[in-house]
Amino acid sequence: MTFEGLDGSGKSTHLERVARRLADRGIAFEITREPGGTELGQAIRNVFLDQRFPGMDGRVELLLVFASRRQHLLEVIEPALAAGRHVLCDRFTDSTVAYQGAGRGVDRETIARVDELATGARRPDRTLLFDLPAELARRRGSSHKRRRAGRIDRLDAETLAFYERVREGYLELARAEPERFRVIDSSGPPEATAVAVDAALADLFGEGGER
Amino acid sequence: MTFEGLDGSGKSTHLERVARRLADRGIAFEITREPGGTELGQAIRNVFLDQRFPGMDGRVELLLVFASRRQHLLEVIEPALAAGRHVLCDRFTDSTVAYQGAGRGVDRETIARVDELATGARRPDRTLLFDLPAELARRRGSSHKRRRAGRIDRLDAETLAFYERVREGYLELARAEPERFRVIDSSGPPEATAVAVDAALADLFGEGGER
Repeated sequence: MTFEGLDGSGKSTHLERVARRLADRGIAFEITREPGGTELGQAIRNVFLDQRFPGMDGRVELLLVFASRRQHLLEVIEPALAAGRHVLCDRFTDSTVAYQGAGRGVDRETIARVDELATGARRPDRTLLFDLPAELARRRGSSHKRRRAGRIDRLDAETLAFYERVREGYLELARAEPERFRVIDSSGPPEATAVAVDAALADLFGEGGER
Repeated sequence: MTFEGLDGSGKSTHLERVARRLADRGIAFEITREPGGTELGQAIRNVFLDQRFPGMDGRVELLLVFASRRQHLLEVIEPALAAGRHVLCDRFTDSTVAYQGAGRGVDRETIARVDELATGARRPDRTLLFDLPAELARRRGSSHKRRRAGRIDRLDAETLAFYERVREGYLELARAEPERFRVIDSSGPPEATAVAVDAALADLFGEGGER
């Protein structure tokens, strides 16, 4: 299961809440995140966000992101699934389609090709997309705090128009795969979002029993 | 023009000598290297050689190498060529085919696909392959010095059989593209190798005039 959306969309907070609910029910699971779910991924993430590299183009980003993702899949996700554990992952390939594709303009065909050879075009069973206007996400996000502290990373420096394109890219993905995606309106208070999350997962982890 | 071969093959030393000859003739050129010809490439190289990541598989390496190469092509090589300068490059895509392909067993089709989208399958006009037995290269190479100093990187830990596969991969490339490749026997003393290098470049930079 993956949690997707803009930085500031609340996805990570709600991932933790879902995890607590699973733990309460005694369901075995693993929490992980991209980029950075492995030591190698963390090292690549540091390169990726480094402000010294403003000239990095979309395809360079794409190759770095999928290097990290493949390692993450081999080292963390596949072993967990093989051991019968659920995996809750903060960002996966949909982030790449939204950020590098819709955001930076890397064509979908190129992304699909790298995805195929890096992950075998692996997709989660369920994806929660936390949707809200880019401007609201920016005000709520950690980039806002970093900005006020005078420490911004390479992605923080992107324009609002970039993040609006990313949001639209996400919504397009959700429209294309309605069985996998659940779009959660996260523009309201966290309590309202939490109710929507529970409803979106009722079929998977509802009172009706385990999968 | 690229200089290829195992670490310890003498390619970097001979690259410098060729560069001095070009400079003497007033030919405009640029020297660069992979991995690491850009600041981003240097950062990726550090990740790549880090001993903490022994579990990195061939495809993860492949994606990292081509991320670095694309940046190198866009930031250094293409601008130099566009300005009418020759480019002498220490390693390029042939290294990947030899190391990740022949060495690690990543299939050629996968390498070709990533190459196409990262560089447009760009090839140099001339490639000098410095060929010698892997065991001799190891004794001459900097890995030998690092080993004695107790500081070895991730690739230094590879077996001799790995480097023999890499050598064979290089020779196979040279057989497939005889117009581009010149195989230089570098098992002998540097003076003999230098004579072979000059002969291999006579048509490009010989007394007969510039290209």
